[in-house]
Amino acid sequence: MRTRAAVAIEAGKPLEVMEVNLEGPKAGEVLVEIKATGICHTDEFTLSGADPEGLFPAILGHEGAGVVLEVGPGVTSLKPGDHVIPLYTPECRECEYCLNPKTNLCQAIRETQGQGLMPDGTSRFSMLDGTPILHYMGCSTFANHTVMPEIALAKIRPDAPFDKVCYIGCGVTTGVGAVINTAKVEIGSRAIVFGLGGIGLNVIQGLRLAGADQIVGVDLNDSKREMAERFGMTDFVNPKNVEGPIVPHLVELTKGGADYTFDATGNVGVMRDALEAAHKGWGESIIIGVAPAGAEISTRPFQLVTGRSWRGTAFGGARGRTDVPKIVDWYMDGKIEIDPMITHTLSLEDINKGFDLMHAGESIRAVVVY
Amino acid sequence: MRTRAAVAIEAGKPLEVMEVNLEGPKAGEVLVEIKATGICHTDEFTLSGADPEGLFPAILGHEGAGVVLEVGPGVTSLKPGDHVIPLYTPECRECEYCLNPKTNLCQAIRETQGQGLMPDGTSRFSMLDGTPILHYMGCSTFANHTVMPEIALAKIRPDAPFDKVCYIGCGVTTGVGAVINTAKVEIGSRAIVFGLGGIGLNVIQGLRLAGADQIVGVDLNDSKREMAERFGMTDFVNPKNVEGPIVPHLVELTKGGADYTFDATGNVGVMRDALEAAHKGWGESIIIGVAPAGAEISTRPFQLVTGRSWRGTAFGGARGRTDVPKIVDWYMDGKIEIDPMITHTLSLEDINKGFDLMHAGESIRAVVVY
Repeated sequence: MRTRAAVAIEAGKPLEVMEVNLEGPKAGEVLVEIKATGICHTDEFTLSGADPEGLFPAILGHEGAGVVLEVGPGVTSLKPGDHVIPLYTPECRECEYCLNPKTNLCQAIRETQGQGLMPDGTSRFSMLDGTPILHYMGCSTFANHTVMPEIALAKIRPDAPFDKVCYIGCGVTTGVGAVINTAKVEIGSRAIVFGLGGIGLNVIQGLRLAGADQIVGVDLNDSKREMAERFGMTDFVNPKNVEGPIVPHLVELTKGGADYTFDATGNVGVMRDALEAAHKGWGESIIIGVAPAGAEISTRPFQLVTGRSWRGTAFGGARGRTDVPKIVDWYMDGKIEIDPMITHTLSLEDINKGFDLMHAGESIRAVVVY
Repeated sequence: MRTRAAVAIEAGKPLEVMEVNLEGPKAGEVLVEIKATGICHTDEFTLSGADPEGLFPAILGHEGAGVVLEVGPGVTSLKPGDHVIPLYTPECRECEYCLNPKTNLCQAIRETQGQGLMPDGTSRFSMLDGTPILHYMGCSTFANHTVMPEIALAKIRPDAPFDKVCYIGCGVTTGVGAVINTAKVEIGSRAIVFGLGGIGLNVIQGLRLAGADQIVGVDLNDSKREMAERFGMTDFVNPKNVEGPIVPHLVELTKGGADYTFDATGNVGVMRDALEAAHKGWGESIIIGVAPAGAEISTRPFQLVTGRSWRGTAFGGARGRTDVPKIVDWYMDGKIEIDPMITHTLSLEDINKGFDLMHAGESIRAVVVY
C-alpha cells in the first residue's frame, strides 16, 4: 500500500512529506493507522545529526496512537479495530529481561530495532522509486500508516482521544513512570525536579499522584513556573536568583536534602547537583535526561558511601503493554492531566513547524494529527 | 584512672605506647576494658596524615571488643561484666536517621565524634602532664580502657572470643553487611568483588552466606586467590592476565554482567569498572572502599539510564546495636569464618609492627591482644 509520511532524508535537513510504499504485516506484525503523534526531543536529537546512532533515510516519530488495520500470521493479542499506542520499548514477556521484575528493558528485538529494521532484518517502508526507508525506534509514527511487531503495541481503551494519549507513548510515561516505577516514591516524600520541560512536568504530576509533600522545581526560566505549579510544584527555584552554589540552597529548602531528585535536563553538571541535593543516608537521584555523546557524570564517592544512590530510567521503567493502558486509564479518570501540555496541534504537512516551535521553546508538546 | 595506650602524637610518626589518664564515665557513658583490637586501614589512613579530618594527638583504633567495667548515670542497657563491641557508627534509636529504615547512619553524636570528643564536647583521655588526647571515631580501642557512649556499644554473648570478634567491629560487618544489608543479595545471584583484602574476603563470605551462585574475585595479586577461594570465591580474575579492558571480560564471565558488584579497593577507576561490569537493566554496584581526598568517580549517564545503579555503604549498612550481636552469633554458629583472617596477634607494645605488616601486605588482619 501507499501512505503519506514525513521522511528524514538526511541529518540536519527538514523532513520531507511524501507518499511512500508500505508493505503489509509479516508474521507477528501489525499494520497500524497512526491517528496522532507527538514530536519529541529525541526525534529532534536524531534529525539534527547529534545522535551517533542515527540512520537515514528514515521515518522518525515514536510517540503515537492509532488503530489496528490488519494483523499478520500468528498475531493473537490484537485484532483490526483495536486502539493502540506504539512502544519503542517492547514487552515480549518471554526474554530474560521481561522475566526479571527489576527491569523494563525487553531485549527481544533490540538489535534489529537499533538498525532501523523489523525483527526479520528488513524494512517495510520504501520510496516510490524502491529505495528502502528505515524504521525509527521501532515505531515510525511520522507516517500515517506503519507496521510494528505485536510485542511493541499496547492495546488501550477505545474512548481515549488519540491526539492526547499519543503523549503517553513517550513523555507522560517517562516522567510519571520515573516516579512510580523507578523511584517508587512514597507518600509524604520530598522531591526535586531539575528541568521543567515536558518530562519535568510529567515528573511533577507523577509526584503529585504519588502523594509527595514537597515538590521543588528547578529551572533557569521563570516562565516555566506557572505551568509547573498547575501540575503540583510546591516550590520554584531559579538558580539565577540564588547566591552561591545551588546544592546547599536546595538542601536547606528540603530540610536536609530531598528523598528523591530527578534530572530532566540531560546536562551532566545538573545531574551531579541532583545527586548531591539528595538526602544523606537515603536520597535517590534518578537520571531521565539524555546527555550529549561522550558527556560523563562525576561526583566524590563519599556522596554514595554516605547513603545516596544514583540511578537512571528509560521509558519510566514502564512495561509498555502492561503499564501504558493503565496510564491511559489514569488520564481518562482525571488522575493525571495531559491536555494543557499539548500546546500545539499540526497537520503532517506542517510537521517542520513543530520542530521550529520546539527550537524556539514555545511548545511543551506539539502533536501532529493525521 | 590510668591505662596504657598507643598514642598517635602526630601524623606520619609511629604510635607511642604510654600511660595515660582516663576519666570515668559521665552520664550516658560507659567505661570499657578493651580486650582486643584489630588494626584497620582506616587507622593507617589517619595516622599517615592522608586523612584531611585527622586530629592529633589522639588514641586511634575502632575495631575492638571488651568488657564493661562501670556505667555512668542514666545508662540502662549495659551493666558491669557485659561483653561489648564498640561502634564507630552508633545506634541511638531516636534520631531521624535511626527512625528511617533506609539508613544506618545515626547522627546523634556525629558532630562531637568528628571532633574527637565525647558528646559533651570534652575528652576523657589526657597525657600524664594533663594535655588532652582526642578520641578517634568515638572508640579509641588502642587503649586498654576507654570511655564510650552507651549508644555506641553493642552487647554481645559472653562466650565469644575477644581476639576474633573484635574484627566484627569493622571489617567483618562492613563486608558481610554490604552484601546483606546494603545490596540485599538474593539466592542465585552473580557477583564480582574488586579487591581481595580483608574487606573483599568478608564480602565474599557474605555472598556465600547469601547463596550467590557465582562469586568472581578480582585482584592484581595472584597470592590472594587461595584465601578467597576458601571463603567462597568461584572465579578469580587477575587483570594483568586479561588482554584488553577488564569490563568486557567480566561481563562475558558473568554472562551479561553481574547482578551485584562491590568495590573494596578505594580506587576510583576500579569503582567505574565495577559499575560498568554490573548487568544492564538491574545490576547494582556498591562502593565500600574509601577513595583518596578529592578523587572522583565518573561514568557515562547511559550506564545508569540502562538500568545500573550506583550505591555505597558505610559499616555495611549495619545498625550496630541490633546487627553486630547477630553477626557474632553467626560466627559462633559457624555461618561465617573469622579465624583464618586474623593472621597476626600482637601485644600493645608491638602495635607498630601491625602497621608494618599492613604496609608490607603480609597481614589480612593483625590484632592487638591486651
